[in-house]
Amino acid sequence: MTVEEKIQAFLNEASPEEKNVFEQVVDGFIAKQQKQQLTYLSGITQAEASTPSKDTFSIRVPITPLIHNPLSIVHGGMTATLLDSTMGGAAMQSLPDHLTAVTSQLNIHYMRPGVGEYLECFATVVHSGKQLIVVEGNAYNNEKKLIAKATGTFFVIPLNK
Amino acid sequence: MTVEEKIQAFLNEASPEEKNVFEQVVDGFIAKQQKQQLTYLSGITQAEASTPSKDTFSIRVPITPLIHNPLSIVHGGMTATLLDSTMGGAAMQSLPDHLTAVTSQLNIHYMRPGVGEYLECFATVVHSGKQLIVVEGNAYNNEKKLIAKATGTFFVIPLNK
Amino acid sequence: MTVEEKIQAFLNEASPEEKNVFEQVVDGFIAKQQKQQLTYLSGITQAEASTPSKDTFSIRVPITPLIHNPLSIVHGGMTATLLDSTMGGAAMQSLPDHLTAVTSQLNIHYMRPGVGEYLECFATVVHSGKQLIVVEGNAYNNEKKLIAKATGTFFVIPLNK
Amino acid sequence: MTVEEKIQAFLNEASPEEKNVFEQVVDGFIAKQQKQQLTYLSGITQAEASTPSKDTFSIRVPITPLIHNPLSIVHGGMTATLLDSTMGGAAMQSLPDHLTAVTSQLNIHYMRPGVGEYLECFATVVHSGKQLIVVEGNAYNNEKKLIAKATGTFFVIPLNK
Repeated sequence: MTVEEKIQAFLNEASPEEKNVFEQVVDGFIAKQQKQQLTYLSGITQAEASTPSKDTFSIRVPITPLIHNPLSIVHGGMTATLLDSTMGGAAMQSLPDHLTAVTSQLNIHYMRPGVGEYLECFATVVHSGKQLIVVEGNAYNNEKKLIAKATGTFFVIPLNK
Repeated sequence: MTVEEKIQAFLNEASPEEKNVFEQVVDGFIAKQQKQQLTYLSGITQAEASTPSKDTFSIRVPITPLIHNPLSIVHGGMTATLLDSTMGGAAMQSLPDHLTAVTSQLNIHYMRPGVGEYLECFATVVHSGKQLIVVEGNAYNNEKKLIAKATGTFFVIPLNK
Repeated sequence: MTVEEKIQAFLNEASPEEKNVFEQVVDGFIAKQQKQQLTYLSGITQAEASTPSKDTFSIRVPITPLIHNPLSIVHGGMTATLLDSTMGGAAMQSLPDHLTAVTSQLNIHYMRPGVGEYLECFATVVHSGKQLIVVEGNAYNNEKKLIAKATGTFFVIPLNK
Repeated sequence: MTVEEKIQAFLNEASPEEKNVFEQVVDGFIAKQQKQQLTYLSGITQAEASTPSKDTFSIRVPITPLIHNPLSIVHGGMTATLLDSTMGGAAMQSLPDHLTAVTSQLNIHYMRPGVGEYLECFATVVHSGKQLIVVEGNAYNNEKKLIAKATGTFFVIPLNK
């Protein structure tokens, strides 16, 4: 069975939600293909990064069934993905071009169910050492409710290009 | 532009990797549609759950570019998703049917880059209180290298059916 | 050997530092005895609590050799004690009189060596649920350098009097 | 008022508990003076270190009112002190003589009230990198109940002698 045939079989049986989520994913692959997104993951979750200030990094993702857990709220792991990406972005933003940072440790407090139109995370560097960067991140929904709060330790490494 | 037209445009330009990753995602949507998977997320990541013992819950996901970060290793957030799902599974497995558990707090140590054929997480309940369950999870790759270690606090709530 | 004899033997051989630290401890026991301090620990560490605002709780302790680790900087566990006490204070301050809160989980980032004249911790409630309170605490030295940052989960219980 | 006079005034009014706790502290200062203990803190808490195996470090402290919180159970910060000391000991035990390790991050789950005759902590290295060591520690009471579980990140530095 070719991928085109699989898609046709899926779409023939798809509920409206399944069709919408699938189209979101297709759009994400196209965004990745067209280099508007760096990874498949950021593509399919429709992540939008911004830098509200030179010390703050931010990413926003729409809340759709694609990132739901079985209770139909945002999967804690997807909130973690958003926090980790945003906090990593803040760490990198604070570094010169020849360095990057990888997550060494991440602690997350989940405070409210991830419901609403979108999740938006803001991250700032709390402490910048030679080797370790401590970053804080807060994830809000569109009603500005604090959904989750994280702190993490990032380890600085040379960027291999 | 219909979703079918978008897909055709994408596939016409797709690299072999893009085709493979896209087919993985299509297979995931079909698995979700056919109720072999509970969520889109577990579908597209091809998560396979198992219960190696009555005290252990396990989930395995193949490592493919779908879950890569920009450095082409597993995104820390996807490792978090795997850990959170597996640890939540262990928490629920320890509860009677009318109760469930939501993640209250999650702490993750990332120890090695997520590379290899698959990630496999094993989680066990460390302490079971009336309201709070403490769970430990370890994520290994196919070479049995410890990629990440997590502990988390889960909050027990009634299951609304 | 009576305690008085032990003390005499100790003081006969004591270095100036040992004498100073010992006197600090004696003062702490007296403060506890006179109910100026609630615990031996707060007494001997000369902890001073304050409430800078209705949402903030603060405790300050002088940095003396009593709380040093073998490297002659503040023992990370004593910074943890300060953070835990202050964060617990903030949690309790947010609760009605018939409830109290116990630490369920505490995550600390140590950022700078604990050196200076004193450590001062400020804690605020980040999220207040029915059963769980999330609190943030920051420990600074007298030069306002951030020594450590913590977040914690506190579990609400009835206060048994 | 000399320290001797202060001590006399304190002892004249002291309850049996206050006398016992005070004598514990005096014994601790003597142990420190006689170099049986490395720090005041380990002295007054009567910490006893051991190495049950080459991969495990252990410290035991008696539970006395000295380390109680206002609820008359072990202060969470003192459990943290025990965990941090033991985990740091395990990290150092894994290093060559010219290196040492400082706590970078510590996450603790408090599971049961700290009651009993003593607390005993066992710590093992989970992962040993060039710069970062991840350590796990478990604190039990004399009934082998798990009181608290911690994981931490230690940063390797040269030992200045």
